[in-house]
Order: sequence, then C-alpha cells, then structure tokens
Amino acid sequence: MNNFIFQNPTKIVFGKGEIAQLANLIPSDKKIMITYGGGSIFKNGIYEQVKEALKKHTTFEFGGIEANPEYETLMRCVAECRKEGIDYLLAVGGGSVIDGTKFIGTALKYEGDPWEFLEKPIVVDQAVPLATVLTISATGSEMNKGSVISRRERKQKLFFFNDACYPQFSILDPTVLYSLPKKQVANGLIDTFVHVVEQYMTFDNKAYVQDYWAEGILKTLVEIAPKLMANQEDYDNCANFMYAATMALNGFIVMGVAEDWATHMIGQEITALHGLDHGVTLALVYPGVISVMREDKKEKLLQYGERVFGITEGTVDERVEKAIQATESFFNSLGVKTRLSDYNIGEDTINEIAERFAAKNFVLGEKRNITPDKIREILHHVK
Amino acid sequence: MNNFIFQNPTKIVFGKGEIAQLANLIPSDKKIMITYGGGSIFKNGIYEQVKEALKKHTTFEFGGIEANPEYETLMRCVAECRKEGIDYLLAVGGGSVIDGTKFIGTALKYEGDPWEFLEKPIVVDQAVPLATVLTISATGSEMNKGSVISRRERKQKLFFFNDACYPQFSILDPTVLYSLPKKQVANGLIDTFVHVVEQYMTFDNKAYVQDYWAEGILKTLVEIAPKLMANQEDYDNCANFMYAATMALNGFIVMGVAEDWATHMIGQEITALHGLDHGVTLALVYPGVISVMREDKKEKLLQYGERVFGITEGTVDERVEKAIQATESFFNSLGVKTRLSDYNIGEDTINEIAERFAAKNFVLGEKRNITPDKIREILHHVK
Repeated sequence: MNNFIFQNPTKIVFGKGEIAQLANLIPSDKKIMITYGGGSIFKNGIYEQVKEALKKHTTFEFGGIEANPEYETLMRCVAECRKEGIDYLLAVGGGSVIDGTKFIGTALKYEGDPWEFLEKPIVVDQAVPLATVLTISATGSEMNKGSVISRRERKQKLFFFNDACYPQFSILDPTVLYSLPKKQVANGLIDTFVHVVEQYMTFDNKAYVQDYWAEGILKTLVEIAPKLMANQEDYDNCANFMYAATMALNGFIVMGVAEDWATHMIGQEITALHGLDHGVTLALVYPGVISVMREDKKEKLLQYGERVFGITEGTVDERVEKAIQATESFFNSLGVKTRLSDYNIGEDTINEIAERFAAKNFVLGEKRNITPDKIREILHHVK
Repeated sequence: MNNFIFQNPTKIVFGKGEIAQLANLIPSDKKIMITYGGGSIFKNGIYEQVKEALKKHTTFEFGGIEANPEYETLMRCVAECRKEGIDYLLAVGGGSVIDGTKFIGTALKYEGDPWEFLEKPIVVDQAVPLATVLTISATGSEMNKGSVISRRERKQKLFFFNDACYPQFSILDPTVLYSLPKKQVANGLIDTFVHVVEQYMTFDNKAYVQDYWAEGILKTLVEIAPKLMANQEDYDNCANFMYAATMALNGFIVMGVAEDWATHMIGQEITALHGLDHGVTLALVYPGVISVMREDKKEKLLQYGERVFGITEGTVDERVEKAIQATESFFNSLGVKTRLSDYNIGEDTINEIAERFAAKNFVLGEKRNITPDKIREILHHVK
C-alpha cells in the first residue's frame, strides 16, 4: 500500500424527499445563484422543489449550461454573479452543471483570465462556496473537487482541481433518476464503471480492502444495470445506482493504490474533437486499453475476471481475454456501441489524438508507459 | 436503502514516516497538550518522533491515560489544560487515549459537570481542536466522533458523540504496530470485526455496495489475521490491518443501513463490572447474539456465511449454524476464549447486566427486540 493523504469534507444528504432540506442547509443570509442545464428540471418537478425549499432565501438563476460545459457560457454566469454580489452557488443538475459551477466559483475568486488555471499548472484553492442537488448520476462531481471544462472554439476539454470546490453538501434523491433519458442512465453506468476500474485495474497494490471495495461497486453495477434499464422507476435500483456513482469517485476507493486515467484522458480528446457523449467515449476506449495493456495488467485482469464476472475456467491468457470480452459486452448490453467506426471516426482522429499527447509530452498509465504510439495502438484496436 | 446524512471531515495521513508531517499539520501558534497512555511510546520510538516533529511548537504533556479511560484521570488533565491555556490536543495512543482526549476537549468547552453529557441525553457540539497519532488499531476512534469513558468508582462505562470531536487529522503509520503486544493485535482484530458486523448483520437493506464493503473488510481481516499473528513486523500485514480498522468505524459502511450495537452495549457492561478487555467482551458476547437472534438475522447470516467464509453446503439451518461456528472459531484462532466461565463470570453478572438494561428501559438490536430477557438468554448461551 502506498502512503496517502485523504480528506473529503462534503456532506451527503441522501434519500427521497430530501430536497426540502435545502432550507436548513444554506445560511439564510446568502445570495444564491442557482445554476442549471437545458431545462429538464422544469419538467420533472425538481425546480419547484428547489424554489419551494428556498422561498425565504434570496435567489438568482442561470440556466443553459450545456453537456461538456462551455467556457463562454460559464463566463457569462461569472459576470452575472459579479453584478449581483452572489456569495453562494447551488448547482441543480448533473456532472456538467456541477463542473461548470465549480469553474464559476473558482473564477469568481481568481484574478486574471480563468482559462489559465485550466491550461497551465496553476494551483487554485479559493472558491465561492457551492452545493449541489444532483439530477444525473455519472461523474461523481457531487462529492469531489474536480471539474472538466470545454472550449469548443479551440477544440479543448481540460480539467482542474480545487480543494475549495468540494461541495458543502450534495442532496442525492434517487427519485430524480426516474425520468432520466435511458441514454443518460447507460452513460452514467459506464462512467461509474470506468471511474472504478481506472482506480483499480493496475497491479497488485497489496491493498485488500480497496480491491474488495472497487469490486463491490463493479459487481453492484453489473447486477443492477439490467434491472435499471428494464425498470427505471424502481427506488432500490435508482438508490443503488446513485450511491454507487457517488462512491466511485470521492476518494474512498483510491487510498494508497495506483491509478490509470488513460481512458478518461483519451476519451476526453474524442469528445473535444467530435462532441461524443463522455460515457460513450469511455466505452469505446476502455476495451482498447485493457486489450493493449493486458500484459501489464494481467494479474489484476485475472482477479477482476474471477471476482466480478466469475471467470475461473481456461488458461491465464484465455481468462484475461474473457475478462476483456465481458467488459465490452457489459457496455454493449447497455445499448452502447464500442467501435470507432460505429461513430464514423477514422484514422485522422486517431493520428490527431496521438499527436496531441505527443505535443504535450504526455505519457499515460499507472507505469507511465502508454506512449503516443500505444495510444495509436489502443485506438486502432477499437477501430 | 434508508435515507441518511453523511459527513466525515477528518484528514487521514497514512504511511511509514508520516509522523514527521506533524510539524506542518498543526498551526505553529498553538499551545498543544500531548496526551498519552502507559508509556509504551517511550519504548517504541514514537515519543521521540513526535517531539522531534513538534520541536518548534509549544507543547505540554499528560500521560497515564489508562485502558478504558477513567473520568478522574481525564479531569486532572482538564485542570492542567485550563491552567496552561491549551488550545490544541494531540492524542498519541490507541482508542483509550483518543477517546479520553475527546472527553478532555469537550469538557474544556462545557459549562457544568462534564459527567452530565455522558449520563444524560445532552447534545455537545463544541470542543478544543484535537488530532491523533494512532499507536493501536482497534476502536476506529481516529476517524469518528465517538468516545467511551469509564468511571470505576461507579462501575459505569458510558459513551458520547460530538461533531467537534472528529480529529482534525490522524496520522496512521503502520510500523507503530510492529511492537504491539500480541494480545492487543488480537483484541484489535476482534474489535474491528465486530464493528463491521454490527453495521451489517441485520436484514436485507437493499444496499448492495454497503454489503460488499462490509464483507470486504471482514474477508480482509480473516485473510490477514493468521499472517499478522505469525509475523507482526510485515508492513503489508500491518498496513492492511490499520486501514481496515479505520474504515470499519468511520461512517463509510453504515450509510443507509440498519445497525445492531447490542454486542458493544452488553460487552461494555462486562468491562464496567469486571474490567475485561473490550475486545474480549465482544468475542464473548457476539456468538451469543447471532445464535439467539438467528431467526431475525437468518438472511444476512446466510449471505455472510457464503461470502465471507465460503459456506454453501447444507440446509438453511445448517449453514446458519456453520456461519455462527466460523465466527466463534475466528475469535478462538486469535487466542481469545469465548465462554464466560473462562473468565469466572457467572449468574450474578448475567443478572446484574440484564437488570441494568431493564432499569434504563433499554432494548437493543436492529428491530429493538433484544429485551433484558433476551440479553439474559444471550449471556446464558455463552456461559
């Protein structure tokens, strides 16, 4: 087990009916900017619940934060917040709205052009306090300090971390998932799954509890996915999905172990270039990563195959191959296609992505051996 | 899954050599009271590491906090802290020192007789900031807000919770366990095991990740226990034990599920009356609890038997019995005897304990059906 430091101050308020708690969770003297996305909160009753809970608070609203939240949109909100003297941000949405709100909160306390702290290695540690009412389970942003922002004009998608961006609290009411489009449920399951494996599928870290915990989330996802796809209005299905998604990226399973974020890093470039859903890019890239890197990850792939999918028959190589196949089949079972050709993505994009990493001198993987050439190989594998 | 609120602000600094981080973790202007126990920290080098790290800080010392920390001892430290104007407490020890320090920190901010907030249902939410350097893995106190205090003169052992008692940080260096007496390792493994089952062995809560996580800690304990008892100076064994013990009682596995603290409640009374080690009382009581309450806990006992001990053969009743036997055998394998007669505890004590719960009108268990009569039955079962 590696040495580590862990701290996560976010309060989780979980369960049906808990949105009403907003009234007690935000100090009454705050000037609150409520941020949201494309307007689904007006259709599913969440907006009314939030407004009802905050009827004695001073609130402003900023909507229209898009999937893969856009720098230009967010900068408009920053200007709005400055004008109104906002001192509390409430994100009502999924990962994009929450990530966008983390950016807004950080930008409000940052002197200079906010794009700097995304593009350059600049440490930010100030932000306007923020909280969330989660409406889509996927990114885990409701209980971590990370944020990913896009700038379409420059075809860029970049991330930053800020300790001050841990939400003060996040309200997780599983019933908000009842009306979520099926596609977003599938994407959320994939995003959660890939978050876990990127903190797990490396080598033997001699971290037994951490392994069992990662596998516990994966097994839960595999078990609930078909039930959830078949019946989205079942409270238990939604509660277990929502819980799993938050636990997958809040630091709980990564203490003392190696990480490999290659899939997210490569997937992010596909979104930047083609605008594909984040979850879809992960389903595309991940089978390529474990296929090409199977020698390095062999021990863990065997353990994963056995403990998550019950694969115990065959030679080592056969079991490894079965584990890779089972992973891709799981993504396919959610209705997501896992070949670049399914999305009309070809050689040009593969080259462009490899070159982007080469230009930045980036190597990926837990052993820092996923070079631009390996990235090319990974993408060819899933052509 | 039940609705729940979760928040745990403690920072964990984990790994060999991390005690040196103390210098950066406590503000330099603090007047620190270092609290400790019987003096083992002078023999194993921990005292020197702490003093070296804090050589530029203003420190005072209070030693002699005993196992099952004593109210009178702690009140002497409270007086000492008042005299010196202490504004930071650093517990260097195991659960008893940490629990005692939580009491000291709370008493320093409490107006009136501090025994009140143990004996009466009084909510305390203030405390002098405290942190810990853990030297014994067992109670999980290093990452929670609970504390158990004894008052021998009155034969009482009572607990309290205080949100302000979450340690600001806890340093967990697994190498401190190398020199721990074998008996304390065994007690710590049992304490950790029973913490987990008391948050797990109830009924089906439809909380899949939580079940897997609890079982993951239990499996880890079962796997490492013989290795640890055989070779205590192995870093991996100690790191996994230390990690498991902290994760067992920090709120991570209890979100949204039922709890049954009967074993701790009954065991506490045995310690109050006979001074037995906390871990030993748990090993005594727990087999009685799951044996007498087997009908209520049947579903979970079957799942536990299969997932933790691989019990799949036999009728339902046989498998339940095997799971109970496997639990008691695990405790025995650590050199701990599990019958009251092994400790010369007889009918008088059984009656006294049942009467204490009757007098307080206490019923225990996840279904509030462990009445004083059931408590008598449980203790008879392990006579």
